[in-house]
Amino acid sequence: MIDVKKPTLLLDAPRARLNIRRMTEKSRRLGLRFRPHFKTHQSHAVGRMFREFGVGAVTVSSVDMARYFAADGWTDILIAFPVNVREVEDIRALAAQVRLGLLVESPEAVRRLAGAWPAAVDVWIKIDVGANRAGIEWDDIELFGAVAREVTAVAPLRLRGLLTHNGQTYRARTSAELAAVHGESLMRLRRVREALAGRGFGSLEISVGDTPSARRLEDFAGVDEIRPGNFVLHDAMQLDLGTCAEEEIAAAVACPVVALHPRRGEAVIYGGGIHLSKESLVTRDGEEIFGRVCLPEGDGWGRALAGTAVASISQEHGIVRTTPDVLARLAVGDLVVVLPVHSCMTVNLWPEYLALDGPRVGTIRGWQGTAHGHQAGAE
Amino acid sequence: MIDVKKPTLLLDAPRARLNIRRMTEKSRRLGLRFRPHFKTHQSHAVGRMFREFGVGAVTVSSVDMARYFAADGWTDILIAFPVNVREVEDIRALAAQVRLGLLVESPEAVRRLAGAWPAAVDVWIKIDVGANRAGIEWDDIELFGAVAREVTAVAPLRLRGLLTHNGQTYRARTSAELAAVHGESLMRLRRVREALAGRGFGSLEISVGDTPSARRLEDFAGVDEIRPGNFVLHDAMQLDLGTCAEEEIAAAVACPVVALHPRRGEAVIYGGGIHLSKESLVTRDGEEIFGRVCLPEGDGWGRALAGTAVASISQEHGIVRTTPDVLARLAVGDLVVVLPVHSCMTVNLWPEYLALDGPRVGTIRGWQGTAHGHQAGAE
Repeated sequence: MIDVKKPTLLLDAPRARLNIRRMTEKSRRLGLRFRPHFKTHQSHAVGRMFREFGVGAVTVSSVDMARYFAADGWTDILIAFPVNVREVEDIRALAAQVRLGLLVESPEAVRRLAGAWPAAVDVWIKIDVGANRAGIEWDDIELFGAVAREVTAVAPLRLRGLLTHNGQTYRARTSAELAAVHGESLMRLRRVREALAGRGFGSLEISVGDTPSARRLEDFAGVDEIRPGNFVLHDAMQLDLGTCAEEEIAAAVACPVVALHPRRGEAVIYGGGIHLSKESLVTRDGEEIFGRVCLPEGDGWGRALAGTAVASISQEHGIVRTTPDVLARLAVGDLVVVLPVHSCMTVNLWPEYLALDGPRVGTIRGWQGTAHGHQAGAE
Repeated sequence: MIDVKKPTLLLDAPRARLNIRRMTEKSRRLGLRFRPHFKTHQSHAVGRMFREFGVGAVTVSSVDMARYFAADGWTDILIAFPVNVREVEDIRALAAQVRLGLLVESPEAVRRLAGAWPAAVDVWIKIDVGANRAGIEWDDIELFGAVAREVTAVAPLRLRGLLTHNGQTYRARTSAELAAVHGESLMRLRRVREALAGRGFGSLEISVGDTPSARRLEDFAGVDEIRPGNFVLHDAMQLDLGTCAEEEIAAAVACPVVALHPRRGEAVIYGGGIHLSKESLVTRDGEEIFGRVCLPEGDGWGRALAGTAVASISQEHGIVRTTPDVLARLAVGDLVVVLPVHSCMTVNLWPEYLALDGPRVGTIRGWQGTAHGHQAGAE
């Protein structure tokens, strides 16, 4: 890291591997199919770490990302985003290449999937268990039935099950709250499955997605598949939620210090919204922050500094609010290491990681710039 | 736009050109040197539009961006970010290629610039006129003097002047407030210039940067140079501030509709934080939004829909809160056009724009993926 000249995304590969191992073992122990979400790391190389642990099925959030991982030999890919019917031709092409899963939530979208398919396609119905983002609201049984009927009417589509991402787990502040929202979600999923079975749609599977419950809970009664993604890298948000320990955070951004302002108790770093994303979190102390701050240590980084955080952010600037002690240890030209609030959003900004043990590790952004990615930028 | 399959950054080039023409004419009329900030558009092609109006000097916010625009023939480039001393070798290489300007705010940083330079370099001292981001606080005359002395002690550095970005103008809710914070900023800049003249540092220039004052005010007494950037594209934030009219917004993101939720008064679009950025604004009605929403119209987009906004956002999803009228006009698979909150942050996410009149227009992100950019991603 000593050679880092400008903001650089860092990957602690041993930590990522340990995170993968733990989640793989847990899913085996609980008898759950593990279909990790790859939108967090967006990297062939990190994807290959999952293969070391026998993972063969993955989740992505776009057709482009499905194509990227198919190019690295993944053959069982679920696009866990309400199907974008404008991309139906690209989706058909993918279905010729891999076992493909799609997500639907309206009869209209399913009807737009009619036509010739090169192979069978798994279709999951998105259920909104209470987060009110995407999906059919869990109590709208009529609509579930209507969508299920449409799916079975389009020949190569196979109705596979019910899928949710329970975003409400990110609002749970205690283990008891987390268990409660997770338990309620599972109850709603099972209720919809029963209602659909009663309408002739039997043997439906249940797939759930969020990292907090996958990491911390043991009760997955009725669930067939889990799709956590964030756990491979974790971040300051998961740390704040209690989902991970600090030493499980596997990605961070090294940022040069460009100015010190002892009068304000602040340092200015070269590291802004284009390096970290503008995602913030409100800590348990009610403070809005854009990252936790560490110092380089050995080949990696040390513990997050007490009383220190990225307090505000603009395009390239980060303002680190800190203590006189920390300020006294910093000089212009030093590096600090920022633990991002939301690693998925941060990683998305980068064409590559710098692994702490040396190599550069590419992401989809780097790949799309190459001939393989067929998306070299226009001049 | 009818062929757009997935989220796509749109450029209305005639609007951008008109924005450039107006700002060029205004700066000439006021006798100000115009050094537009190119971090907003980050595109060779948009940069070339400025050349059509005789612009020859530009501002950027990183060494990489300086290199990108130098590669397209720009020869007078100011890097308006506190100098990152870890990149000093790259900065020296640039100084051999273009007339380079740097920004400093501490004696330590200036000392790290000592050594052999291939050519003279302009140095600006960053002054914090009250926004408390970067820069020397305007009343710390001793520190200005110390930095000025260091600059003149390093042989090829030329002390050029005082530079500020008055971020406080983004908090002004009325023209009177804007004029007041701008006027106070100029007074502080002139006072520091006088104090430095009294210490033997004469003939210093003043450079100011923000779009709201450059666009709306006429009093630039004592100012030599303006560096606005955002005005070329504008965005929902400038619209909300009153800096621009809606028909001056020149960039937007086309997003497919993937689900409709009439019960909640919402549509789900394929367009999230990775397409728009997570930047939000709190409107005059106290509502936090992530973008204004229009419908496609002709080759471009129509007026922003009343009672409609991107109300929340995650990695790929946007939730559009809207009226029953608008919902009744939308179908799954339609496109909406989102006016981003902050165009600089949005454009930064994309390797190219789709110009409304047809061509694809590259950005630095696309270029860095090509052989020219020397940054093809690792595998």
